[in-house]
Amino acid sequence: MGAQVLAFGDGSSEGDPKRRDLLGGKGAGLAEMARLGLPVPPGFTITTEVCTRFQGEGALPEDVKADVRAAVAKLEQSLGRTFGGENPLLVSVRSGARASMPGMMDTILNLGLTRAGVTALAGTTGNARFAWDSYRRFLAMQGSVALGVDKHHFDDALEGVRLKAARTKGLDVTRFNSEELRRAMPDSELTAEVLEEAAVAFEGVIAKHTGHPFPQDPWEQLWAAISAVFRSWNNPRAITYRRMHEIPDSWGTACNVQAMVFGNLGATSGTGVAFTRNPSTGENALYGEWLPNAQGEDVVAGIRTPLPISKTEKSKGTSLEESSPAVFAEFVSVARRLEGHFRDLQDIEFTIQEGRLFMLQCRSGKRTAKAAVRIAVELVREGILTKHEALQRVEAKSLDQLLHPTLDPDAPKELVARGLPASPGAASGQVVFDADEAERKAMAGLPVLLVRTETSPEDIHGMKAARGILTARGGMTSHAAVVARGMGKPCVAGTSAIHVDERAGQLTISVASESGQNKIVTVKRGEVLTIDGGAGAVYLGGVPTVPAVASEEFLELMVWADEARKLKVRANADTPVDARVARSFGAEGIGLCRTEHMFFDDERIAAVREMILAEEKPARERALAKLLPQPRGDFIGIFREMNGLPVTIRLLDPPLHEFLPDKDSQLEALAATMKVPLARLKSRVRELHEFNPMLGHRGCRLAITYPEIYAMQVRAILEAAVHVQREGVSVQPEIMIPLAIAKAELDRMKVIVDEVAKSVFDAESVVVPYLFGTMIELPRAALRAHELAETAEFFSFGTNDLTQATLGLSRDDAGRFLPAYVEQGILEKDPFVSIDVDGVGELVREGQARGRKTRPLLKVGVCGEHGGDPSSVRFFHQAGLDYVSCSPFRVAIARLAAAQAALEGPVASTA
Amino acid sequence: MGAQVLAFGDGSSEGDPKRRDLLGGKGAGLAEMARLGLPVPPGFTITTEVCTRFQGEGALPEDVKADVRAAVAKLEQSLGRTFGGENPLLVSVRSGARASMPGMMDTILNLGLTRAGVTALAGTTGNARFAWDSYRRFLAMQGSVALGVDKHHFDDALEGVRLKAARTKGLDVTRFNSEELRRAMPDSELTAEVLEEAAVAFEGVIAKHTGHPFPQDPWEQLWAAISAVFRSWNNPRAITYRRMHEIPDSWGTACNVQAMVFGNLGATSGTGVAFTRNPSTGENALYGEWLPNAQGEDVVAGIRTPLPISKTEKSKGTSLEESSPAVFAEFVSVARRLEGHFRDLQDIEFTIQEGRLFMLQCRSGKRTAKAAVRIAVELVREGILTKHEALQRVEAKSLDQLLHPTLDPDAPKELVARGLPASPGAASGQVVFDADEAERKAMAGLPVLLVRTETSPEDIHGMKAARGILTARGGMTSHAAVVARGMGKPCVAGTSAIHVDERAGQLTISVASESGQNKIVTVKRGEVLTIDGGAGAVYLGGVPTVPAVASEEFLELMVWADEARKLKVRANADTPVDARVARSFGAEGIGLCRTEHMFFDDERIAAVREMILAEEKPARERALAKLLPQPRGDFIGIFREMNGLPVTIRLLDPPLHEFLPDKDSQLEALAATMKVPLARLKSRVRELHEFNPMLGHRGCRLAITYPEIYAMQVRAILEAAVHVQREGVSVQPEIMIPLAIAKAELDRMKVIVDEVAKSVFDAESVVVPYLFGTMIELPRAALRAHELAETAEFFSFGTNDLTQATLGLSRDDAGRFLPAYVEQGILEKDPFVSIDVDGVGELVREGQARGRKTRPLLKVGVCGEHGGDPSSVRFFHQAGLDYVSCSPFRVAIARLAAAQAALEGPVASTA
Repeated sequence: MGAQVLAFGDGSSEGDPKRRDLLGGKGAGLAEMARLGLPVPPGFTITTEVCTRFQGEGALPEDVKADVRAAVAKLEQSLGRTFGGENPLLVSVRSGARASMPGMMDTILNLGLTRAGVTALAGTTGNARFAWDSYRRFLAMQGSVALGVDKHHFDDALEGVRLKAARTKGLDVTRFNSEELRRAMPDSELTAEVLEEAAVAFEGVIAKHTGHPFPQDPWEQLWAAISAVFRSWNNPRAITYRRMHEIPDSWGTACNVQAMVFGNLGATSGTGVAFTRNPSTGENALYGEWLPNAQGEDVVAGIRTPLPISKTEKSKGTSLEESSPAVFAEFVSVARRLEGHFRDLQDIEFTIQEGRLFMLQCRSGKRTAKAAVRIAVELVREGILTKHEALQRVEAKSLDQLLHPTLDPDAPKELVARGLPASPGAASGQVVFDADEAERKAMAGLPVLLVRTETSPEDIHGMKAARGILTARGGMTSHAAVVARGMGKPCVAGTSAIHVDERAGQLTISVASESGQNKIVTVKRGEVLTIDGGAGAVYLGGVPTVPAVASEEFLELMVWADEARKLKVRANADTPVDARVARSFGAEGIGLCRTEHMFFDDERIAAVREMILAEEKPARERALAKLLPQPRGDFIGIFREMNGLPVTIRLLDPPLHEFLPDKDSQLEALAATMKVPLARLKSRVRELHEFNPMLGHRGCRLAITYPEIYAMQVRAILEAAVHVQREGVSVQPEIMIPLAIAKAELDRMKVIVDEVAKSVFDAESVVVPYLFGTMIELPRAALRAHELAETAEFFSFGTNDLTQATLGLSRDDAGRFLPAYVEQGILEKDPFVSIDVDGVGELVREGQARGRKTRPLLKVGVCGEHGGDPSSVRFFHQAGLDYVSCSPFRVAIARLAAAQAALEGPVASTA
Repeated sequence: MGAQVLAFGDGSSEGDPKRRDLLGGKGAGLAEMARLGLPVPPGFTITTEVCTRFQGEGALPEDVKADVRAAVAKLEQSLGRTFGGENPLLVSVRSGARASMPGMMDTILNLGLTRAGVTALAGTTGNARFAWDSYRRFLAMQGSVALGVDKHHFDDALEGVRLKAARTKGLDVTRFNSEELRRAMPDSELTAEVLEEAAVAFEGVIAKHTGHPFPQDPWEQLWAAISAVFRSWNNPRAITYRRMHEIPDSWGTACNVQAMVFGNLGATSGTGVAFTRNPSTGENALYGEWLPNAQGEDVVAGIRTPLPISKTEKSKGTSLEESSPAVFAEFVSVARRLEGHFRDLQDIEFTIQEGRLFMLQCRSGKRTAKAAVRIAVELVREGILTKHEALQRVEAKSLDQLLHPTLDPDAPKELVARGLPASPGAASGQVVFDADEAERKAMAGLPVLLVRTETSPEDIHGMKAARGILTARGGMTSHAAVVARGMGKPCVAGTSAIHVDERAGQLTISVASESGQNKIVTVKRGEVLTIDGGAGAVYLGGVPTVPAVASEEFLELMVWADEARKLKVRANADTPVDARVARSFGAEGIGLCRTEHMFFDDERIAAVREMILAEEKPARERALAKLLPQPRGDFIGIFREMNGLPVTIRLLDPPLHEFLPDKDSQLEALAATMKVPLARLKSRVRELHEFNPMLGHRGCRLAITYPEIYAMQVRAILEAAVHVQREGVSVQPEIMIPLAIAKAELDRMKVIVDEVAKSVFDAESVVVPYLFGTMIELPRAALRAHELAETAEFFSFGTNDLTQATLGLSRDDAGRFLPAYVEQGILEKDPFVSIDVDGVGELVREGQARGRKTRPLLKVGVCGEHGGDPSSVRFFHQAGLDYVSCSPFRVAIARLAAAQAALEGPVASTA
């Protein structure tokens, strides 16, 4: 056998478990478990390299087929069964990429089964029901996945058979819908005869839709299944998932072919999924679900609501722990061993065949951010991980979830249903039943809640668009729950009181009332529900929220992060309230305090407009004088909150026309209020109109024309600084000039600042040290940074504007084409979300290097959206910046991302 | 004496004439002439370094004063006169910067004169009139220049004295305005008594306005005059002139103090200005003017219309040649010697004192472009210059003048006046009488003609703004004539038939009519006149023009330029007509053929709009198919014109909304024409609206969304290429993609281009080689040039857009603040006129270097306004580009500038 097909089982594996790139995650887990001597059904992994060959050659290469034939022969020998023979060897065929892609790839079970095999299987197992059940499952999976027959044809055929069986049983089926029929006549009550009938119907479906009878040659089945696995790497769901999770298209998937074990061999059989710790809360307790007499797909797909593995108050003997204590004990021991071996939370799939435990998969388990933090910190406490390892176990971006507000406990709310707490966080939104609609409405800016009986991979784009997900069926490991946790979206799953009627565009909730009689609440599409994904609760209407409270583990992890990181983290905050929130999240200063909002305020805008309409400097100065007191008050509040920390204040940036209305009716009203002739007002608006305001008369260009505006702002800042310094506050104002392109601009601005400072300090007989600096937000500023640094004492890269100018992309206008650029891979990522390292990044690196060539101790930071994006933070760390500044809610993300960047050590430039 | 004050005269000079940086132009000329043994009145030069000290210290340093005292003492000794003594030494005090700044700096004559001195002078010369005339001139100059008294106070006082004298003479003065009074009672008729009266009145004016009697201490006079010279370096006129001519503020001016010689000592005295060749045509003939019995300022200021130096048909004995043949012969010999010595056209000032010739100044003479070309070429023919020297003698920018259209000889035109042909070229414009108004109207886009009795340095901004200048007084060397030639503006000077009445807002022209009776034509402010500066003619109304015809010397110089240069020069041309013009100017290809005009055409825009409104690709393709034939026809025409030369065609660049109207009324009309619901049209317009169209959905971003647009354009180009190739035309199409930022964009575009090419060539069974390239017009494109060059076969830097993005400056919006940036020196030059070498230039250098690292033979050019700007061309040469492309009319400029850049040799980077 060549290196393309690698066997595992019986205590050994040909593949190296460390080669996840070759074996995929599932294959590596199976190889590792086999080497550990755990009960793994034998099988083999076809490597990811074959996937790449398959994509190139468009078919399974003949040499690979030969290797597979040899591997199957070895399996036959080891198990004493024959592929397609009397004592048939059945296999599962599953995908398994390097990165976990749950629900993304297709799986086929019971492959190798034929009409003849069913008869043989019924004979060897003495269980005809099992044999037909296995065959009809295989037909549906192979038919839909490998042969391209639409899945609903099999559902329809099964419903027909079920209906007949129900009538035979004497049920009055006339008033049942599909769901009610399934409840009345569940799969478990379908007899061998009924299942045989279903299998025959499925064969008919396949023959009708493919034009060929279902192949009775197991090799033909196998080649089709393996090809389907490799083909599925490029199905739209997989591509969407990869894009969402930044998985390269080039990796490919491996294909695992493994001897079947059967969880559907009766009451002593079953199948389950478990986590070694609670993936939602992180609690250190085995956490899982199982279904007796079922195959694995039943659990994951959420068709039946599964039972707990461990005994609980409510389990009433249904748990694995109660029903099969010996198997449970063995499973607990295996789970402990796996967690210890991999030093991380494990997500384990298992099957029990007639009382015997088999391990089908183990992998690092997906978890909520809350769980990730708790598990990482507890693993350190347990001595399993180092602090540095723990820091790298938590995805920085995921901390966003912890900062999601939760429901206001004191707000009135009407609980209408309870489901499983599948993914934490609270969300309110308009109910939609369709993923496309969710996406449409979300793009229009509406908050939506996606409500589905159960979700499927086809729903991913809608889940991404929704604020939260609510399902009627499925457990904690259902598709909805797993994907929602991955996305950090609130999710309540398995809410059985809910009935979704998509066609009618509504859902009904059966709510227990005081009278004991259930009442039915109807919620139409577009009406609002609220879910609490941490509590599994569903409320009618919208419910107000409160900010998140940080856990003890979170705080501890943040302390470690702060010890590890080199980058300082500041926040962007414009008001005293923002400043307080920022400080509570650990911000080490304010990196960007915008001042324009101080002009937009309802009370102040009149004076601003008076200033704009003034034709001479003295009139402008009079108007500005009116504007002075309120900003000063704002700065006093901000300085108090940031006692002991630096506060960078950017002077006025937007063009003046932003302060004037543009509609005729508004102008008329304004002219009347201001007692200014309408014609003059209109002429001033016309005068100020700009074709490209982003590249217009804004930033310090305003102050070249109207120095008095900046003079007023500097006065407000420094008078506030003097005021709080008298109170004993340690104040560190940093005055920042926007949109500079030349040293001469800064020289002129510095004269304004220094003159005002002298005047304020002389008048108050006190001095407050302050810094004078500039934003670097245009390419020329980065290129001439060595000159700007002669005057500027600090730089702050305004990477939003720098991105706009460097790429020639207006953020306001790019919506029509930028998404296509990212989807088509023309740009790797949205450059406004994650910094364009190759283009903008070079200017950042050059800017800081040139600036520091002139002024070695130049303070250099970043403000803007990128400051809260982990991969951008990593870049800023590598580029040698002093700090990032981001929105208060992303400070924790930035702190962790900065620590992770520092622990990675120096990384070669990507240029 | 230290090195700060350097004496000259008597056949030697202390200063090195080569040190123009120290001595200034005038000082260096005097030093050189003294060393040549020419008759130069002795004196000394205070160096430019003292000017720098003066600006720093704010006053004349004491050590400099000591040096000056010593130099004056030496003068006293040499001339046997005493400064402020009985036989008074009088001096002139003049500025003299390194670069010639005519009329910019202030001059004082007759300094050292006092009441006592006047009496003494009258005695020694026996000429009281001369003594008082000298004193009153000195008082007016010293008063206005050194003591800050407004000049018009002296004019008013003189007018009062003149009025009285006229009355005394028995003239009826009641109906005279000032001008008429001056004609009736010219300076030459003012007697000693009248001039004494004027001097007394001037002393009164000075006492009144300074609060002190006029100083009778010559040293006090001298310190004030020298300080005034140094101070005048920073007067607004000087600053404006330096900005216009790119003279660094740091150079400073020297100050020349020289013993007076007197042209106003009677009939055998006089003063004049001459050029060794004709500065307007370049003709090799001594060319100059003189005034008998006058001081130099009278000639330059244009107060009296001067007489020719050489005998002409009309000179009727008034020429110097006729009236003083010996002096004339001496002067001719001196002029020849100076031209031979300096190997260039000399501009010479001289004074004749009682039959004795004195040289006061010599310098390289300002000349028209036409003269510069002819003189340079003839000096080569005369064996005086090499071809390479000749190329460097013509300012490239000035060639613009040669390309100015002249009046259509066949057009009907009404000649109303004749003046001096002071500066060539034809111009029509609205008459304005005021420099400020000229500037205002020109900024509003109106063509204006500045009409003045005579111009003064205060008018420079108006002259700059005007299309042409017309004056009633002054000769070929008057302020108006000199400045207009420097600016390359048409000028007719000394048009004596014109009378300007500024207050009435009109001019009157006395036109000879058939009846012999002159008729008066009145032209009001805002009405149109046309001047022909080459002919000295003034026409009523507008007159059509025809393109310039190149002279034989021009064509020869261009041949030398083409031999010397390395850069190729192409033109920007969008139509076959443009292409023909470009080729006639020597363009070596088309560097930018824009295609949007092919969409804006009245006939085609309907199909363009249909395309924009189409909702599906097939409908768009149907509309585009209608657009195909006409562009194809355009390309056929262009390819034929450019037979054998490359043609770079840029695919569609502007955003689609530019093709739709935006006013409601226009939209209603369009909806009716197109039979489209108005609501749909409006909604599409809203959809397409952009906040910053410059950074929006344009360039190749359009083709990422709508590839069919580029496909149509490429089809039109290549079908045209196939067509003309069949005709035997050698066609070299270069298809250029605008606004790329990533290689992936180019890859997608190349697929479109290559697919269309294959389809066209297959259908026609013929192949036309073509190149695929990209514009580099965004910073990211320059930074990722090494990647873009993997796909692009050529680059063309779009420096207009690159400047906009790099500096964050919208060309459309910068008008409100960019002029202030240039005026205040924040940016050295308007970056849209002359490339910002420090910022944009670095991206150009890097872009070409990175591109060629990937593809060593990458063709790299520039298209855009900078391609026709000489200092930008120099930069592009240094940056190693292959070609520049500019507007057809600037091709000659670019050819010469490229030659000059090549002759300069490699220049160190300015970064």
